[in-house]
Order: sequence, then structure tokens, then C-alpha cells
Amino acid sequence: MRSFKGLLTLLFFVLLSIKGLMAEEAAASVTKSDIDAITANINIVWTLVAAILVFWMQAGFAMVETGFTRSKNSVNILMKNLMDFSIGSIAFYTVGFGLMFGASKAGIIGTDLFFMKGIIGTGDGTEWGWTFMIFQTVFAATAATIVSGAMAERTKFSAYLVYCVMICLFIYPIFGKWAWGSLFSSEGTGWLQNLSTGAFCDFAGSTVVHSIGGWLALAGAIIVGPRLGKYAPDGTPKAIPGHNITLAALGVFILWMGWFGFNPGSTTIGNGEIGRVAMTTNLSAVAGAICAMGTAWVLFKKPDASMALNGALAGLVGITAGCYTVTPGGALAIGTVSGVLVVFSVIFIDKFLKIDDPVGAVSVHGVCGLWGTLACGLFNAEKVLGKADVSTGLLYGGGVNQLISQLIGAGAAFIWAFGIGLILFKLIDVIIGIRVSKEEELRGLDIDEHGMEAYHGFQIFTNQ
Amino acid sequence: MRSFKGLLTLLFFVLLSIKGLMAEEAAASVTKSDIDAITANINIVWTLVAAILVFWMQAGFAMVETGFTRSKNSVNILMKNLMDFSIGSIAFYTVGFGLMFGASKAGIIGTDLFFMKGIIGTGDGTEWGWTFMIFQTVFAATAATIVSGAMAERTKFSAYLVYCVMICLFIYPIFGKWAWGSLFSSEGTGWLQNLSTGAFCDFAGSTVVHSIGGWLALAGAIIVGPRLGKYAPDGTPKAIPGHNITLAALGVFILWMGWFGFNPGSTTIGNGEIGRVAMTTNLSAVAGAICAMGTAWVLFKKPDASMALNGALAGLVGITAGCYTVTPGGALAIGTVSGVLVVFSVIFIDKFLKIDDPVGAVSVHGVCGLWGTLACGLFNAEKVLGKADVSTGLLYGGGVNQLISQLIGAGAAFIWAFGIGLILFKLIDVIIGIRVSKEEELRGLDIDEHGMEAYHGFQIFTNQ
Amino acid sequence: MRSFKGLLTLLFFVLLSIKGLMAEEAAASVTKSDIDAITANINIVWTLVAAILVFWMQAGFAMVETGFTRSKNSVNILMKNLMDFSIGSIAFYTVGFGLMFGASKAGIIGTDLFFMKGIIGTGDGTEWGWTFMIFQTVFAATAATIVSGAMAERTKFSAYLVYCVMICLFIYPIFGKWAWGSLFSSEGTGWLQNLSTGAFCDFAGSTVVHSIGGWLALAGAIIVGPRLGKYAPDGTPKAIPGHNITLAALGVFILWMGWFGFNPGSTTIGNGEIGRVAMTTNLSAVAGAICAMGTAWVLFKKPDASMALNGALAGLVGITAGCYTVTPGGALAIGTVSGVLVVFSVIFIDKFLKIDDPVGAVSVHGVCGLWGTLACGLFNAEKVLGKADVSTGLLYGGGVNQLISQLIGAGAAFIWAFGIGLILFKLIDVIIGIRVSKEEELRGLDIDEHGMEAYHGFQIFTNQ
Repeated sequence: MRSFKGLLTLLFFVLLSIKGLMAEEAAASVTKSDIDAITANINIVWTLVAAILVFWMQAGFAMVETGFTRSKNSVNILMKNLMDFSIGSIAFYTVGFGLMFGASKAGIIGTDLFFMKGIIGTGDGTEWGWTFMIFQTVFAATAATIVSGAMAERTKFSAYLVYCVMICLFIYPIFGKWAWGSLFSSEGTGWLQNLSTGAFCDFAGSTVVHSIGGWLALAGAIIVGPRLGKYAPDGTPKAIPGHNITLAALGVFILWMGWFGFNPGSTTIGNGEIGRVAMTTNLSAVAGAICAMGTAWVLFKKPDASMALNGALAGLVGITAGCYTVTPGGALAIGTVSGVLVVFSVIFIDKFLKIDDPVGAVSVHGVCGLWGTLACGLFNAEKVLGKADVSTGLLYGGGVNQLISQLIGAGAAFIWAFGIGLILFKLIDVIIGIRVSKEEELRGLDIDEHGMEAYHGFQIFTNQ
Repeated sequence: MRSFKGLLTLLFFVLLSIKGLMAEEAAASVTKSDIDAITANINIVWTLVAAILVFWMQAGFAMVETGFTRSKNSVNILMKNLMDFSIGSIAFYTVGFGLMFGASKAGIIGTDLFFMKGIIGTGDGTEWGWTFMIFQTVFAATAATIVSGAMAERTKFSAYLVYCVMICLFIYPIFGKWAWGSLFSSEGTGWLQNLSTGAFCDFAGSTVVHSIGGWLALAGAIIVGPRLGKYAPDGTPKAIPGHNITLAALGVFILWMGWFGFNPGSTTIGNGEIGRVAMTTNLSAVAGAICAMGTAWVLFKKPDASMALNGALAGLVGITAGCYTVTPGGALAIGTVSGVLVVFSVIFIDKFLKIDDPVGAVSVHGVCGLWGTLACGLFNAEKVLGKADVSTGLLYGGGVNQLISQLIGAGAAFIWAFGIGLILFKLIDVIIGIRVSKEEELRGLDIDEHGMEAYHGFQIFTNQ
Repeated sequence: MRSFKGLLTLLFFVLLSIKGLMAEEAAASVTKSDIDAITANINIVWTLVAAILVFWMQAGFAMVETGFTRSKNSVNILMKNLMDFSIGSIAFYTVGFGLMFGASKAGIIGTDLFFMKGIIGTGDGTEWGWTFMIFQTVFAATAATIVSGAMAERTKFSAYLVYCVMICLFIYPIFGKWAWGSLFSSEGTGWLQNLSTGAFCDFAGSTVVHSIGGWLALAGAIIVGPRLGKYAPDGTPKAIPGHNITLAALGVFILWMGWFGFNPGSTTIGNGEIGRVAMTTNLSAVAGAICAMGTAWVLFKKPDASMALNGALAGLVGITAGCYTVTPGGALAIGTVSGVLVVFSVIFIDKFLKIDDPVGAVSVHGVCGLWGTLACGLFNAEKVLGKADVSTGLLYGGGVNQLISQLIGAGAAFIWAFGIGLILFKLIDVIIGIRVSKEEELRGLDIDEHGMEAYHGFQIFTNQ
């Protein structure tokens, strides 16, 4: 039995040493939480880069709007672009973010997270909240800045500042809550995410950002009225050419670049999906540019540059809702329709509705945002992409449910933004006046509103 | 023997529990495939960011070409830049990518992957194919857009559109197959990668992108002929100043920024190499700018801005082939030669060859691309960099083999691109006419081709 | 005993197989070094992206300075911006980096790492040195480029080139050593990092980059003297409007974008902190823009665009020191003061000191850099942010120690940069002459210094 005891002792130590080895192994090894932390960091880096690209779109809007309008109003447009971002950033940080992503009251309005309460100082090491906050801030500001183009060249600066507060304080965030409320916390889910026909699909904001901005722009353009000389007494519209197509083109390239943050960044995850979203985004943009040019070529006998540039933007707005769920072929189809649609929409609004939108913002962002949102109901092809068991798009055998959800969401956006817009701009008009005086408009807003001119020293025709 | 049985039973359970512990450990722990997935995601994020930066170069080309030409042709140049990217994106997606990266026929032409077949829906989770596709698309479009500068101010818009289709459909992709065919799949290896003197080295495309674009530009400039008034009847060249040096300078900064995606991004791997490539890229660029300015200062007695700006681009083009394999000192040497070379090349082409290249595209992209490609055979210093056991550069004791491979590759590029270019542009000229009418050229292409002017309201000298 | 032997043999093999399993497990599993390598790669990708964004600020400075000055000096300003980056890159690579980050002599000057010796070829796989080098290069060039604005429109080009060499060769690096010397190696620690009142805090360079540039600009503006016609014989200042506010605004947007690399990138770590730094950076910028506009509105009765644009930059400069250690509320406070301060500073320098700073560089970078540096001593709130056990800011109960350190650091920066600046520019003036001739200044520097004009074909008033 001695040897038995000896054996047992031996075994005991052998097992102990095995246990020791295993513990060592475990200590030297790596756990899922390491992997999760690293993955979180990759997502943060990607999302912040995307946020920076979306910020950059502010410069794009500034250049497009300035380039497509007259030189005597350039300083004014630039200041509006600077200020809608600046005021919007503060309004969204203080209140808007909470309304949009805070815990939800009936899926309609958020009720906490104001002033980043609950985010500051409570980071879990990865501090996702800060990155998400800056990403959402630049999205809110994108919606805000769409309006300045449609109301350019005759809107009082102070009136515009009031609007800037309102859109990022509550107009954009409340609709955002409805469609995207759950993005930061599952307690924030919005009612459009719970439709019985399936969640409203707007991946990066054809409706949430662009249509909201576009319908507000429509309301603003209606309330402020057309520029002097835009319509002859008999209602014939007169073209008022922009003063710098080069800058407008630069602006479109800037926006296009920014859209590679806007759409692929909306995954907020740094993995292979971002390349896919970049591909669909780009294909729709190029199809939009080509088809808008082609449409203009047929209609006006010339490949018009304004239309081609707006066509690229139209394609980008159009694909924004479905960029994650459609095939490259679907993206080409969406862009093609966007490119044709934007030309007819510009003509329709200008000639038939007689609403003066100097840069075509309503057509690009409102109308093509609507189209892009509906297109999700047609072209959703997640099964083809290997991402789901079914494709919800009508053209991919998914029935009409998705399309119904899209109609509900897009309809809600129109009612909300256009309705609030009419009320807001009317109130502004009544209380502080929305439009500059005739003399000021003729002389240009730069001199009277800002006491300076944009292009000192250059000889510019005064009768333009 | 009872105790024996008892011992065995004990042992059995001990071993079972060890096995259990180990299984648990294995479950909680992390495998190489987790690491591989994360690494793939880092590479995807980096490569997509790089692709976005390369896309941004389109804006740079647009600003450089517009700034260096006359204001009456600005809309036309901008539209050409917009359209070569748009048309090129579709041509490359449908056909070009497959010819370049598909399974290879004799290392000469790819035969599958058209319309992304084999990539869509077959992702392995990381979906590298999508990101690679967008990255390669913007590279193809870079080659395409080089040509518009050299043919500026007199080429018919419709003629240019035909060219746009061709370059991204097959001209660029087929040469790309030869040099880079294996980048997506080992079955795609091209013949220049299998030379007996060693693989042709062109890390980011001094030849594949820039020389191909440059030699096509040369062919185009020859076929379309010089601008009216460029050469006096006795052949003396006349300088035709650009209308906006500020925008040209902005364009150079944009291109420079984009090049930090172009060169470091060509690793398609997010690791420390990208910092190294960024350093060599930057040092060559700054040396190019300084030396081109210095050369101009000596020759013309003034530090000419056009030359300094083109010098920066020359340095960037020059380092593109060798950015991964040369030392900082090598980069400074390559940039220095590029800066001097571009000035003499511009003068030589303008005064002696009497080929009218309004922006110097042939010198910057063709000639300095050739120089940079050969420089790989001189300055390759992978041993010094700690990356390989031998340096293949002639100046680093590597013999002439690498240089011979470089000569073969660069020669093949010239024959392919210049040859096809002459045929293509001649065919276009014969079939639809490559050049606008005299009246249109004098009035500017903007009015007649596009029905608009770029700078409405500004007083511009008409006799420029 | 046979069974005993059999049992032992069995046990032996069982244990062997366990060992084998464990070895296999260990091989298949992942170690901390894998995680470290991946983390290093994430940091590299983020830092290089940030470096690219900071490079982009060169374009921002170029557009702001060109836009805010007259069209007859545009080529000259652009060339100065191109050359300070180009020359600075080489000076910093060869000597400056070593002085700043090399092993420290008494915390005052670095003594190795010249020409990247010790970095090239000795990579540890992640090659952090290369990425750190390019990141620091673009920082040095940012300091360099601040000066050109303050000395615009009358400084000789060759004189400016001499300055360019000096700042990146030793002026910037030596102060950088004092404040940031330990960033690359602990042997490089500078004396301001070892103050008995606690380390001088300047996270991203309110002092190191911006004040150093600003005080050099002040010295330069004093030595070169005001532009012709800037002050009436009785000393009344005359406004000399810039020629392109659109480009100036574009420049501000570019700088703002670049600052998202400048500040968040200064972590050189890709984790959740970068989102936090982006938030504080943005909030200060928007507060600066709004408050500078408001201040101008009160003082001049108009919302002046130049002031609003400079206000955004003032907010950005102000937050640069404290972006990592203050709350969003603190950031808003810093930006608010920056916005008010920059307006009064511009007026004070222009009207009372009668120093001619065409773009307000001294106020934006020098004065607001000083304010931002001191603000760290007031608003540091690391405890509130959950990052430390105490907040060192005076307003957060941290006492005056941090503030004292900030005063010492900021004071040292002023003495060093302004002192060296006066000597350097005076020497340049004596040896080669710092100022162009009267005739040249009136005609514009573009024609006489560079033999070209920026806007050929445009009619520009000559008496501006």
C-alpha cells in the first residue's frame, strides 16, 4: 500500500502542476472581453472618421449654395451655413439628442440624456456615447443646412437663426426618435420601428435627414416667396444663374466624399459591410449624374452642368435609405430614377408650382429622399446579399408590407416637417419678419446684412 | 483491488473534470479566427478610408485643370471630370474589374468577376471583395481623369465621353491585369508579375495609373492638336495663363491629401507600413515642389507657381511606384529628380515637340510616372528597411535585374497606352469628330457645349 | 504489481495526451502579444488618418490667408503656404524631430534620432516611429504656416523661405521638447513636464503649436511693418478687405475638419477618448463662432463674417490645450471666451498697438492659444470625466498649482518665440531685406515676385 500512497501523491502533484499550467495558460491568454474592447475601438475609429466626413458636408453645402446663387449674397449664404451648424450643434447637444435617443415616451419623444447626462463620466471604458453623440450631431446639422439653399438670396439673417435653433432642438430630433430611436438604447424605440407591416427602413436617412430638411425647405420657400425678378408678371420663370459653377462643382465633390461617411458610417461598425455600402452609394451617385445629364440633354439640347451636379446629389440622397439593403443593380436603378426625377421635379416646382428654390434643394433632398425611401420597399434584397432569409422588396418577391411601412414613414415625415415648417416660418414672419427689404434684396444681402462684400476688387455687373 | 478500482474511478473523474475545465477554457478563450476577423476589419476600415481619399482626388484634378485653364471653358472641364468618374465607375464595375482581377488567360486578360459575380452574396463574413472593388474603382477613375487636362479647352464633350467608357472598360484594366492581376486572387497573376528578372515593381501605380493616363493624354493631345493661338505661325509657343491659381493650388493640396490614401492605402493593410509609405510619399512631394520651384527660378528668374505646384505632383507621381520599398533618402532623391524633370519635360513638350498640354499632364503623369517606375530599379532598399534579405535596387547592390523588369513594364505601358490611344482618338475623330469648331473654341466651350457660363456676373476680358 | 505498472503506463499516456491537448490549445489560442499588435495597428490607422487631416489644414490656411487678402498677392500667399510645408517637412525630418523627441539634455534639447536614425529598419513589427514621425511633421508645419498670414502682402518671398527653414529646424522643436519631449521616449522628457507644480498641460498644442506660431507672427508683423495705406498719417487704421470671402470660409471649414485630426488625433490611440475630444473640440468651435459674431454684432451693428469665421478658429485654438481634460460645459465656456476675446484682440492690435496683421493670426493663434492654455488651469475636470481621482482645475477645486504651471509654460513660450522671432526677422531684414519695394507692393507681389497673376482674364479694380 506504500506504493499506492506514493502513486496517489505523485498523481496529486501531477494534477496540481497541470492545474498550474492551465491557470498560467488562462492568465497569458486572452478573453472575449479583450476582443470586444478591440472591436469597440475599431467601431469608434470608423464612426468618428465617418462623423468627420459628414461634418465636411457642411463645406459642401456652403460651396454648392454659394456657387449656385449670385455673388452679392455670398457672404450671407456662407454665414447661414456657418451658423446653422454652430447653433444646431448646441441645440442638439443640450436638448435634441435627448429627445431623439432618450428613453421613449410611447415611441414619440425621448425624455432623458439631455446635456449628455448619463454619458459624461459613466463611460464603460469604450465610451461609445461620445462618439455616437458627435456622429449624430453632424447628422442633425446636415438636416439643418439643407434649408438655407432653398431660402437663399432673400431671407433675413436673424429670421434664419431662429429657424436654426428650432430644427436641431426639436423638429429633426422628434422625427428622428420615431425612425431611429433605438439606436442608442433599446428603451428609446420609436413608433415607426414597431409598425405591424415591419420596421420602417431608412438606413442612413433619405427621410430622416434629407426629406425632413427638404420639406422644411419647401415650407420656407413658400412662406418667404420668390426672389424679385424670378417670375415675370405673367408667371414665366426666369433663370437666375449662379456666380461660380466651379465652386458648386467643388461642393458636389465635397458632399460626395462626405456621403462615404454618411452612408457607410451609419453602420457604426467597422467591418466588411462598409465597403458594400460604399459601392451601392457610389453606383447610385454616378447613375444619378449620368441620367440627370442625359435627361437635361434631351430636354434642353445641352448637357447642363447644374442638372448633372444635382443629379449626383439626387443619386446620393436616393440611395441613402436603401444603401445597406440593395444590390449594386438595385443601386443603379435607384440612381437612374433619381437622376431623371430630379430634373423633372426642378422643372415642376419652378414652372408649375412657381416656388422659387434657387439651388433645387426641395427636389434633391425632399423629392429624391421620398423616392429613395419608397425604393427600399421595391429593391430590398437582403436575401440576395446573403444577409437574411427573405428579401422584403416587392421586386424581390417580398410583397407589399415593406412598401406600406415606407409609405407610412415617408408620409409621417412630410406631415410633420412640412406642417411644422409652415407654422414656424409663418410665426417667424409675423414676429420678426422673414424677408429683407426690396432695396436690400436688390443691392444684395452682403452689404446690408453683413456690411461687407464677398469679392472685393472684382468688377461685377450690377444689373445681374 | 477495490482500492485500485476506487483509484481508477477517482482518476477517471479527475481527468473528466480536467477535460471539462479545458473545454470551458477553450470556449471562453479566443481563437486565431477571432484575431483574423478583427485584423480583416482593421484592413477594411483603412482601405475604405484610403478609397475615400482617392475618390477625393477627383476634386483635386477638377480644381487643378479648371484653375490652370481659361474661365470660358470651366464648366466644360468640370463636366468632363464629373463624367469620367461617373462613366468610369460603371464601366469598371461591369467589365473592367473582371478583366483586371478575374482568373487570368495567359496572364493577359481576366475572364470572370464581371458585374461582381462571385462577390455579391458570397461574402465570408469580412466581405473583402466589396471594399477592394470600391478601392480599385477610384484607382481606375484616377487614370481616366488625367487625360481631360491635356485635351482641355478644345475637345468635344461627346468625344470625351466615348473615351471615358473605353479607358475604364478595357484600356486601364488590361494593363492593370499585367502588373497587378494577382491582387485579388492568385489565379489572376499577370505576365509582368512573372518576369524572369523578377516581378515588375509598381507598388501604387506610377505606371499602372499615372503613366497609362499620361500616355493616353499624350495621344489625345496629339490627335486633337493645339489650341487656337497656342503656336504662332512660326511655331513659337505662347503662354495661355490659367484663370484661377488659387483653385489650382487648392487642387494640388487636395491631390496631395488624396495621395495619402493612394500610396499608403495600396498596402490594403492597416499596420505600421502605412506610416512608412506616408513618410516616403511626403518627402518626395516636398522635394518635388522645392526643386521644381528652384529649377524654374534658375531658368525663368522667378519662382513660378505653376511649376512649383506641378513639382509637388511630379514628386507624388514619382514616388508612387517605389513608396513601399525606398528609404526616406531614396524618396528625397526621387522627388528631387521628379521636380527638375517635370520642368524640363514641360518645356520640351511645349517648345520642341509642340504638343499643347494645357496643364502639363503628360509631363507630370507620363514622364514622372516613367521616372518613378525606373527609380524602383535604382533605389529599392528593402534590406535597409529591414523588410527583406536583399535590396534589389542597383544603387543598393541589387544588380540590374530589377531595372530590367522596370524597363519592360514601363515599355509595355507606353506601347499599350500610347498605341491604343492613337487608334482610339483617331477613330473618335473620324466617326464623331474630336474637336469643337473654331467659333466655339474662341467663344469658349461653356456657352456652346453646355449653354451656361461658369462665372455669371463677373467682368472677364473677352480677348484673353 | 503488473496492474500497477499498467496503471502507471496508462496514466503516463493520459497525461501525455493532456499535455498534447494543452499544447495544441496554446498553439491555437491567442496571446496578449497578438492583442497588443492589433491594438498597435488600430492606433496606427487612427493616428495616420489624423495626420492626413492635419496635413489638410495646410489647404485651410492657404484658403483663409488668400481669401482675406487682396487678389494681387494671391500667388505669393499660396507659394508661401506651399513652401513652408515643403521646406518645413525636410527641416523637421533631418533635424527638428531629433531636437524635439531625441534623448534629452537637461530637458532642454534632444540629441539623437536625426534623419530618423534609430527608427529606419529597426521596427518592432508595428513600426510606430514612422507614423509618429509623419504625425509630428504635419504639426510642425502647422506652426510654420501661421506666420505667413500675419506677414502677408509685403514680405519678400526669399526672406520668408529663410524663416521657413528656421522654425521647423529648431524654433518649434526646441519648445516642443520642453512640453512634449517624452511623447516618443521617456528619455526625452522636457523641463515643463517636470514642474514642481505639476506637468504643464497642453494636450494638442494651444501653446506648443498655435502660440509659438502666433508669437513668431507677432514678431514678424512688427519687424516687417504695416502695409502701405494701412494707417493714415494720423495713425487711423484703414480696413483692407480680402478678395474672396467664399474661399476664406472654405478655408475655415477645412481647418475645422483638420482639427478633428489635430485634437482627437493627439491621443495617438484609437479608443473612446477620441469621440470625447471631438465633442469638446466642436463645442468650443461653435461657441467661438457664435460669440465672435455676437460680439461683432454688438460692436459694429452687423454680424461680421470675418469675425465669425475667426471666432470659429479662435474656439478651436482655445480648446486645443484642454480638449482632453475639460467637460462639454467647460468647452463651451472656453469657446465663448475665445470668441469674445478674438474680436477685442483684433481691434486692440489693429487700433492701439498699430500692428498690421492682415488675417488676425496673432489674435487667433497667439492670444487665444494663451487663453486656452491658461483655461486648462481653470477648467481641468478629469475627476468629473471619470478619468482621475482629482480635477486640477481651479474652478473644480484643484487649487492654483495647475494654473501656475500653465503660466510658466505659456510665459516660456512667449519669451522663446517672440524673442527668437524678433532676432530672426531683424537678422533676415539686415542681411537680405525682409520687405518688397514700394512699387512692388503697390503692383502686387504676384507680378514682381512670381511673374504671374492669380486671376488672369478677370477685371479687377487696380486702385484697391
